[in-house]
Amino acid sequence: MFDDAESDPKLLSDEADRIIPTLRTQLLKAQYQHLNKQDRALLILVGGIDGAGKGDTINLLNDWMDPRHIRTIAFGPANRSDKQYPPAYRFWQALPPKGQTGIVFGSGYAPLISEAVKKRPDTRKLEDMVLMARRFEADLVANGVQVIKLWFHLSRKAQSERTSRLLENPSTAWKVSPLDKKVHKRFSRLRDAGQRIIEATDSAHSPWIIIPAADENMRNVRTGQAVLQALRRQSIRVPALHDPAELPKLRPSINPLTKLDYTVSIPKDEYDEQMLLWLNRLAEAVRHPKFVKHHSLVLAFEGQDAAGKGGNIRRLTRAMDARQYKITPISAPRQFELNRPHLWRFWREVPAKGKIAIFDRSWYGRVLVERVENLTPKVSWRRGYTEINAFEQQLVNHGAIVLKFWLAITEDEQLKRFKEREKSPFKQFKITADDWRNREKWKEYYRAAGDMLSFTHTDLAPWHVLSSNDKRYARVQVVKRVTQAIENAIKSHD
Amino acid sequence: MFDDAESDPKLLSDEADRIIPTLRTQLLKAQYQHLNKQDRALLILVGGIDGAGKGDTINLLNDWMDPRHIRTIAFGPANRSDKQYPPAYRFWQALPPKGQTGIVFGSGYAPLISEAVKKRPDTRKLEDMVLMARRFEADLVANGVQVIKLWFHLSRKAQSERTSRLLENPSTAWKVSPLDKKVHKRFSRLRDAGQRIIEATDSAHSPWIIIPAADENMRNVRTGQAVLQALRRQSIRVPALHDPAELPKLRPSINPLTKLDYTVSIPKDEYDEQMLLWLNRLAEAVRHPKFVKHHSLVLAFEGQDAAGKGGNIRRLTRAMDARQYKITPISAPRQFELNRPHLWRFWREVPAKGKIAIFDRSWYGRVLVERVENLTPKVSWRRGYTEINAFEQQLVNHGAIVLKFWLAITEDEQLKRFKEREKSPFKQFKITADDWRNREKWKEYYRAAGDMLSFTHTDLAPWHVLSSNDKRYARVQVVKRVTQAIENAIKSHD
Repeated sequence: MFDDAESDPKLLSDEADRIIPTLRTQLLKAQYQHLNKQDRALLILVGGIDGAGKGDTINLLNDWMDPRHIRTIAFGPANRSDKQYPPAYRFWQALPPKGQTGIVFGSGYAPLISEAVKKRPDTRKLEDMVLMARRFEADLVANGVQVIKLWFHLSRKAQSERTSRLLENPSTAWKVSPLDKKVHKRFSRLRDAGQRIIEATDSAHSPWIIIPAADENMRNVRTGQAVLQALRRQSIRVPALHDPAELPKLRPSINPLTKLDYTVSIPKDEYDEQMLLWLNRLAEAVRHPKFVKHHSLVLAFEGQDAAGKGGNIRRLTRAMDARQYKITPISAPRQFELNRPHLWRFWREVPAKGKIAIFDRSWYGRVLVERVENLTPKVSWRRGYTEINAFEQQLVNHGAIVLKFWLAITEDEQLKRFKEREKSPFKQFKITADDWRNREKWKEYYRAAGDMLSFTHTDLAPWHVLSSNDKRYARVQVVKRVTQAIENAIKSHD
Repeated sequence: MFDDAESDPKLLSDEADRIIPTLRTQLLKAQYQHLNKQDRALLILVGGIDGAGKGDTINLLNDWMDPRHIRTIAFGPANRSDKQYPPAYRFWQALPPKGQTGIVFGSGYAPLISEAVKKRPDTRKLEDMVLMARRFEADLVANGVQVIKLWFHLSRKAQSERTSRLLENPSTAWKVSPLDKKVHKRFSRLRDAGQRIIEATDSAHSPWIIIPAADENMRNVRTGQAVLQALRRQSIRVPALHDPAELPKLRPSINPLTKLDYTVSIPKDEYDEQMLLWLNRLAEAVRHPKFVKHHSLVLAFEGQDAAGKGGNIRRLTRAMDARQYKITPISAPRQFELNRPHLWRFWREVPAKGKIAIFDRSWYGRVLVERVENLTPKVSWRRGYTEINAFEQQLVNHGAIVLKFWLAITEDEQLKRFKEREKSPFKQFKITADDWRNREKWKEYYRAAGDMLSFTHTDLAPWHVLSSNDKRYARVQVVKRVTQAIENAIKSHD
């Protein structure tokens, strides 16, 4: 794999002078076509042996292309505030929109290499990291982000010589990091770790490209050529992970909603008593030091129009400090959101440790309204189930408590509430022509909800399907289940 | 001032039941009109005596109005990561767009009250804080953000009773913070401090409104009425601070650019030597622990088209680590940016401590392109000079090193460069019809630049006007001046 790169091939200066002007022109042209088509973003991950000139490459690409449409995404080790969020959070925040190019420097592969280079790597952990990286890239690619990965490589001798040469000259010595100096001592281990990781994470949709880095001309030209080829690709390769044959089969015959008892209700006095009890416990739970330190809370509210999402959310927040929670109401995505993968706008709202994010409608719009209203091709929304499960899994792995509520009402009850809303001067705003239109598609939404509940009900992030025909019943259940989930999480630390 | 509030007025329940439904309907209607007009954002700052029910008010407004168009902006004390940025940074990040309402809880007034309540307040510091708050609000209002400030107040007795009542009942005890319990002990001091701050920061354009808070009905109704009145206001009041009579007089006769010597140049070998020297010093300076800990670097590049902004920036960044700097190219604002004050999109790019923000064109577009192309009314861009000075002052006060470069070329030199660009296959992208059009307005831009240089050249954030007819001369000067500025800042800690 590294044979070519470790032979340290060189490009003579006049050869380079001949190639580079054409390459630059082609790169610029391809960049502009990419920009105008706006069919995808390009993400270039930059990895490789330390001291192989990765840093210079960023300047190079910014120099050769139009830097106004390139985002350099450069991460150091996660700091205190980064650690408040799942590891992928930083990437999501920095993701370029369609038409643009992102160069990721200090890529997410550093932790994989560190593990693989150990004398006794934790194989289980390493496999998990590899799976996560593959999954992450496949999801990006499937959602319009093209990915290429550059691995800068050179022979042990050349690495060591380059480092010494840079160190000798005071004007370049600062380019050498303490890490670079150590590389030659464990070159073969680093090399083998790199090879192992590259093999495990190479794929047609997010390929690794080895860049021979000993000679500057060669490194520059090969980098430029790799980027050019990526920009020129007519369309993104669909990841095998997302092969339609592997998508979940829709099973419209089994709908969890059909089993639901809509007659449950509780009397007013019991409601008052229960709400008081649970709100007090909730108020205590969200302030518990173990919750604040180790966890966050993510609540998604879905359900038919007029099922009572807003009312439930308002009651929950009575037990919370306004500084601790944020309600995010979700409606149709705006253009800048459509320019990114569909989960992007939700990643932006992922709460830090100790915080609470409440979604009034959520990422499940992908498999509800986008499906029913034909806003998204079938192949894309069907992928949504697994993408969403992976998203929630990342939240939970990082300590988030994730609860999803489906507030269910019957068709008759909805009609009654619509009419009430139309009559009430301060509820009129809640009812629009859209609501009536959606109501006509009751069956389609019902079926979509059924599939969603089947495919995304997981142990880590369960659905709570509640009849909301009696608002009081649903409200008590919501507060109770949220509270219990937090209390259980707190107990788990005992 | 507090007479009414400290008489703890009450609203009987049936009175409240009569008033509230109408008030809610009016609030919703006004909110929707506000939303549709999109002529301004409304910011509601919530302050007052602790234990007066400020927190409940947020739930109230979210309950009475359509919460999808309200942003609750709730700040706790600044944490480690907040402290990386100037104090106003958090507000700017959270600013709602036009049409929306923001409720700021734990408002920026807490530090003012803490200072004023001391036995021996630092009068100088307090005056500075007051001036800053006034300035900040005036700038917001002048740029389309309406501001009202609610002060929740009640008598000492009522505050103490409310706290005890809440504490007695386990179901409300959590609403009482440790701070609330202490209030009655120093009630009169808190009250006087509040009065002092309110008097100092009350103004027609961002008024304080005292809300009697002892009785829940009264508090709710008065809050709702205050918000209703604000939403219904036909237009924003222009702050006196921004009275056209107080704006700087334009002095087109004195133009710093006319004094410039365009013949300066340096030979190639001297250039190579100098660049090497200064880039090495720069590389060291940006990595110096004192720079990283105490400072950040903000560089703004302006100048005629083809003056060499990009080339200068690329050379600077050769001495920097890609993880440390970010280049932000500025073009015409997008719709979501136009929905906020013009400085908003630059506040978003303010660097954390140890980081470097480089702007290829900048906030000076307000008084350059927006002026010359008539994109902004004269009264607004003229305000820009003082707004920009205040912005830069905040950056510098927080440790930022701010340098602004005007790269100047002559009309002939520009023509030469335009023609070269058209001929070069990989520079063609840099030259568009716009550039030729701008060239026709050379004199207008020249005059606008002259005014800008006169009004915004400050000791804290000086302009560096450099002839760039000889690119080598300008490049050496830029690297040298940036380096010296950082080195001086480092020395200042000795």
